[in-house]
Amino acid sequence: MREVKISLVGYGVVGHGVVEVVGRKRKLMRDLGLDLKIVSITDHTGTVISPDGIAPEKVIGEKTLQNVKNSDASSKDIIRSVNSDLVVEVTPTNIVHGQPGLGHMEEALSCGKHVVTSNKGPLVVAYSRLKKLADEKGVMLKFEATVGGTMPLISLIERTLVGNKILGVRGVFNGTCNYILTRMAEEKYPYSFALNEAQELGYAEADPTYDVEGVDTAGKVVILANSVFNMDVKYSDVQVRGITEITPEALILAHKRGYAIKLIGEVPALTVKPMLVPLGSPLAVGSTLNAAAIYTDLSETITVTGLGAGRIETASAILSDIVSIYRTKQIDAIF
Amino acid sequence: MREVKISLVGYGVVGHGVVEVVGRKRKLMRDLGLDLKIVSITDHTGTVISPDGIAPEKVIGEKTLQNVKNSDASSKDIIRSVNSDLVVEVTPTNIVHGQPGLGHMEEALSCGKHVVTSNKGPLVVAYSRLKKLADEKGVMLKFEATVGGTMPLISLIERTLVGNKILGVRGVFNGTCNYILTRMAEEKYPYSFALNEAQELGYAEADPTYDVEGVDTAGKVVILANSVFNMDVKYSDVQVRGITEITPEALILAHKRGYAIKLIGEVPALTVKPMLVPLGSPLAVGSTLNAAAIYTDLSETITVTGLGAGRIETASAILSDIVSIYRTKQIDAIF
Repeated sequence: MREVKISLVGYGVVGHGVVEVVGRKRKLMRDLGLDLKIVSITDHTGTVISPDGIAPEKVIGEKTLQNVKNSDASSKDIIRSVNSDLVVEVTPTNIVHGQPGLGHMEEALSCGKHVVTSNKGPLVVAYSRLKKLADEKGVMLKFEATVGGTMPLISLIERTLVGNKILGVRGVFNGTCNYILTRMAEEKYPYSFALNEAQELGYAEADPTYDVEGVDTAGKVVILANSVFNMDVKYSDVQVRGITEITPEALILAHKRGYAIKLIGEVPALTVKPMLVPLGSPLAVGSTLNAAAIYTDLSETITVTGLGAGRIETASAILSDIVSIYRTKQIDAIF
Repeated sequence: MREVKISLVGYGVVGHGVVEVVGRKRKLMRDLGLDLKIVSITDHTGTVISPDGIAPEKVIGEKTLQNVKNSDASSKDIIRSVNSDLVVEVTPTNIVHGQPGLGHMEEALSCGKHVVTSNKGPLVVAYSRLKKLADEKGVMLKFEATVGGTMPLISLIERTLVGNKILGVRGVFNGTCNYILTRMAEEKYPYSFALNEAQELGYAEADPTYDVEGVDTAGKVVILANSVFNMDVKYSDVQVRGITEITPEALILAHKRGYAIKLIGEVPALTVKPMLVPLGSPLAVGSTLNAAAIYTDLSETITVTGLGAGRIETASAILSDIVSIYRTKQIDAIF
């Protein structure tokens, strides 16, 4: 049995999901040979530390850690000083400067701790630097949850499609945009009306810019380009157009001719723009779904589809990453 | 570098693909730490054996091994006596008695050799027995290519979705049926006309029974039930209805109401039947595509889509299985 001591940094929606999922899957993880223990949880109010593992019931009902914290040390001090093997970084994302996640990840990797994250910002801003640091320290940086939510895109490419050369990836990477476009096509709603509906249902933020202008999708394109395609690109290298100028008339006309219009991110082309997608093709998924088509030399096109987001779904991707670290680590030691 | 000596049994379309792909991917495999050598190839005319590995150019242009064979021993004798680590079994499938593949697999596993196959018959007839034999001998039985062609369905479930409980799988598992239904809906063709077109294009056999009556799909349902769901079922446990009675009128009416009709195999329900699938949902794929929706407890529904068949695509799934054996083997030794 391999004990894995986890420091969780960030205790919002995803952080709560991680605590819940690690608790629910304790037995299954032990069957796989892993004894997962969350030994610290940090949010903006402080940190709760418990070297024997924090019981989920102690924290799961707490919106913040205010009432249960037992340390006021800075998050970086916690990352450095708590005895942990792995840091799960799930603080709010910032795609411009990447903070505070970027500092957290640098601290963790510098200390020789693996990092698993759902936080796009640091990877968009500094993937190459973080990857280099991880390699130098002999630890891993895993980020399945940053791209396409529950779609197991990166692990599918790295593990299941091993043997294939990846020629390109094209995908619907933003559930908010996909919901808006789907409703405009189905109900002939104008853009503003569909956006309002998405906001009422909680699928879109009060300020929807990040999603509807393609910023979120472009961030995912940058992460895929740098990780899967070994490019070294930044946000400004991506040509981005969002969905705000699309009319219901355009969607209806496209539909009559056998097409859907989807916001598509493309690598290595580094573009984000509305594109025609044939109805009945795997990228023509509706609602808040994400989809990614992987173009390969041997297996032709493989497409994977899943929910774009969700607390438990994102935490599940994080759990998969944790398991894969301890499996991959052992393999690398052998080959 | 781990040397892997492979005996290839069956030298039809898929067998040729395996020789080609192993040759094309030699360097990549060596980068992964595996030195793959095909040390024997067997078909109904005889066997070519070369302990240092058979050069692809020696055999790739030969339709059969008649002109290049250097042994007339029986296929079982070859499997037993040739010094190999792993047998790739790709003889023609027979879903009733499973032969000759079943005998080949039993021989290989009994000798402590791993088996990788695209041959459904033996798994439909005797999965539990073969799996038990593999476990007893401490070797692996891998069969990604039997279910859904290039779709990485089984490895996705076993590896990428680790941590999830799999609640069910529902899929479009037969490219021939899907092509026929797609063309009936698109062109308002009657069944017989769409079948003729599929036959002319090489998507359907001269005798299409195996595909259009749902036999092929039911075989895949049996394999999934026994492997992913640990059931112990046989072909006769599956309730099967094919697509021969579907009319273009039904497809058009469904389409007007926002649905496609697809031949769906379902596990653990053990059914194969035409079902309504919402347009825009990931199972509503057209042409010869296959698709499978995996229902999970944490990640909700993940869908994967890919080509149902193809020489190189099937060989690619076989190559993935080979790689995964040597990765998984090492992991099991550690945990």
